Amino acid sequence: MIQDLDNELSKVGIDNLVVIGDSTFGNPSLAYVAGATIIRGGIYIKPVGSDPMLIVGEADVGSTKEGNVKDVRSYSEFGFLELAENLGMNKAKMEVCVRALNELNVKGNVCIAGKVEAGIVLNCVNWLKNKGFSISIDEDIVDRVRMTKDNIEIEKIQNVGRKTEKVVEATIKMLLECGIDREDNLKGEGGNPFTVGDVKVFIRRELANQNLIASLGTIFAIGAEGADPHNVGGENTIITANVPIIFDIFPHEVGGYYFDTTRTFVIGKASDKVKKSYMDVLESQEFALDIIKSGEPAKDIMMKVCEFLKAKGHKTPLYYSKKNITMTEGFTHGLGHGIGLTLGEPPELINLFSEDILKEGVVTTVEPGLYYPNEFGVRLEDVVVVRKNTMENLSSLPKELEI
Amino acid sequence: MIQDLDNELSKVGIDNLVVIGDSTFGNPSLAYVAGATIIRGGIYIKPVGSDPMLIVGEADVGSTKEGNVKDVRSYSEFGFLELAENLGMNKAKMEVCVRALNELNVKGNVCIAGKVEAGIVLNCVNWLKNKGFSISIDEDIVDRVRMTKDNIEIEKIQNVGRKTEKVVEATIKMLLECGIDREDNLKGEGGNPFTVGDVKVFIRRELANQNLIASLGTIFAIGAEGADPHNVGGENTIITANVPIIFDIFPHEVGGYYFDTTRTFVIGKASDKVKKSYMDVLESQEFALDIIKSGEPAKDIMMKVCEFLKAKGHKTPLYYSKKNITMTEGFTHGLGHGIGLTLGEPPELINLFSEDILKEGVVTTVEPGLYYPNEFGVRLEDVVVVRKNTMENLSSLPKELEI
Repeated sequence: MIQDLDNELSKVGIDNLVVIGDSTFGNPSLAYVAGATIIRGGIYIKPVGSDPMLIVGEADVGSTKEGNVKDVRSYSEFGFLELAENLGMNKAKMEVCVRALNELNVKGNVCIAGKVEAGIVLNCVNWLKNKGFSISIDEDIVDRVRMTKDNIEIEKIQNVGRKTEKVVEATIKMLLECGIDREDNLKGEGGNPFTVGDVKVFIRRELANQNLIASLGTIFAIGAEGADPHNVGGENTIITANVPIIFDIFPHEVGGYYFDTTRTFVIGKASDKVKKSYMDVLESQEFALDIIKSGEPAKDIMMKVCEFLKAKGHKTPLYYSKKNITMTEGFTHGLGHGIGLTLGEPPELINLFSEDILKEGVVTTVEPGLYYPNEFGVRLEDVVVVRKNTMENLSSLPKELEI
Repeated sequence: MIQDLDNELSKVGIDNLVVIGDSTFGNPSLAYVAGATIIRGGIYIKPVGSDPMLIVGEADVGSTKEGNVKDVRSYSEFGFLELAENLGMNKAKMEVCVRALNELNVKGNVCIAGKVEAGIVLNCVNWLKNKGFSISIDEDIVDRVRMTKDNIEIEKIQNVGRKTEKVVEATIKMLLECGIDREDNLKGEGGNPFTVGDVKVFIRRELANQNLIASLGTIFAIGAEGADPHNVGGENTIITANVPIIFDIFPHEVGGYYFDTTRTFVIGKASDKVKKSYMDVLESQEFALDIIKSGEPAKDIMMKVCEFLKAKGHKTPLYYSKKNITMTEGFTHGLGHGIGLTLGEPPELINLFSEDILKEGVVTTVEPGLYYPNEFGVRLEDVVVVRKNTMENLSSLPKELEI
């Protein structure tokens, strides 16, 4: 959490952290340290042990002050306009950064973070080097701080979660109100077949009602489409009864915080094979939720869930490991991924290769799944906070196969 | 345009372009060269004069092949799984890049592009250097190629434009159907005052209907709020008749292409001062549209529009230039900005400092405005394509002050 920033910087020998970017949108590092939405981005400077400074465009000073940083300045205070005329915008910003570092009288090395076009990063580093600063490289310093969340962040994630679950509930309610024709196809307006494209229009509208953004595309995969965990569902696929549907939705709010939930359900009756798979996934998820607590290595949790599913007769990454073949059947992906300002923050992946230890305040998905090529898939996904001897589940949607 | 890539690379002595990123979302450089939506990103390699290669995760191979690049590979073809076990994900990807560069038998330097966390860029460059590659730095090589659009791109922008204009039309229609109370306030459901928050819910729903994304926030600024070009409009501000409203909307589609349009209107009657400002803005925009053509320096267009507005009695950046005071009254911003996969691609800003020449195929906004602190603002914005001796206006919304 942000309160650990000084500690994390000291631990790896970073004396000054500089986070840059042309917006906080799509730049989780800058969004995080600023704790504010800054449309046109800025330059954040944090000398270890001292308060940070944040330099933004004049129009953004007001809204930026509502965030984490008290000392908010505008570029023009550092002579930006004149610099821009002589150097161009990008170099002018680099020189503003140098002037601010000098004003703060920083000592030691500087580490650059922020999601920025590669050439700008490289020029910025060279500019700082030419001005006498030494550079320290760390590819995920801000990510590591972000790995654990404080209560303010958890509340934001939970708030997105509540809104997301309302969207899922509204969608299921709407599906249950559709008629079903003799071929088990759902009927939409005017009796036409109801397609995945139609349901996605509905979902987008519901997301809009909740002021959530779903730019990455929602998964609504019917039957065999759900057998591929990455298939988002064909726009023209007709929604049919008595077949499992995987509904995986991961929107974020304007401030940047995400939620992520998956439910698998059958409108009508499920086959015995589907029922068995669903129960195995559900039980493996309950098993995982039971053993998640702070101090556990992420890969141990994954290993145990794999063994649990193996005992139920399924292939898992344990089976595929070292075989150098594509995982297509059974449990074919990681158990979960960190979530917050991104869908993939540390612990990036709870899988067999993970080196992360689950710490208090880690927020992660828990999403076992089973896949049968050309047949169907089943996945259930909750978001949990790792606590001292347990976990807190932020998801509250019911888990029912037949609806 | 993408067809110019080899030329642009040669011009600046880049032998090989490598574009990286963990997604095409929020990474216009990668989205552009791939010409496809790749959820989990990839590594694009383009040796000058040869066809590019694009390496992505297995799940993304199929959809990636629908884009610009014929030679699409998966990470696993380069031994990624084993590398990841030994090196971790990030370094494994860097080594995959090295192996691919070696397979392509590339000669000369390598330039890295893509919007990526700074530390990853720096480690990637060091990894390549350690493997014997020399590095060429260019902060906007892909941006420069993107500056001019081919017909496929222009069609995509125009398509977003049509949808955006439908949202504007639906919003205005809805506003005109609202009742107005004795204090000139618009009435919403149940006779309650109709607020900017309410209209934004409506706009988000309409955007959802059109499958457009508006993550950056729409401007709907009433009266004095519109006097600050960056004010997006207070959520609780009541919409009132007989006062100018600035409606500025800039959504994008899932593939990444943006549109951007602004209309200023008064529900009811405008004051004489508002009418005069509106006419001056409208005439200055028509003047700008008349003089935009290929070969013109962007700053000359800006200069001429400033002189046009100065002759009408308004302050402009010409007046503020060198005074080192904040521009608050009159025409206080640039005339436009390039638009495509971002809202700020070259020509980044049509302002007095611009060094860009308007070339055929440049797509830019043209958006003069006038602002009166504590009173109101007026802005009109179209999107145009620069053509040989003229421009093509992609905007078709009417410009009427009183509605």
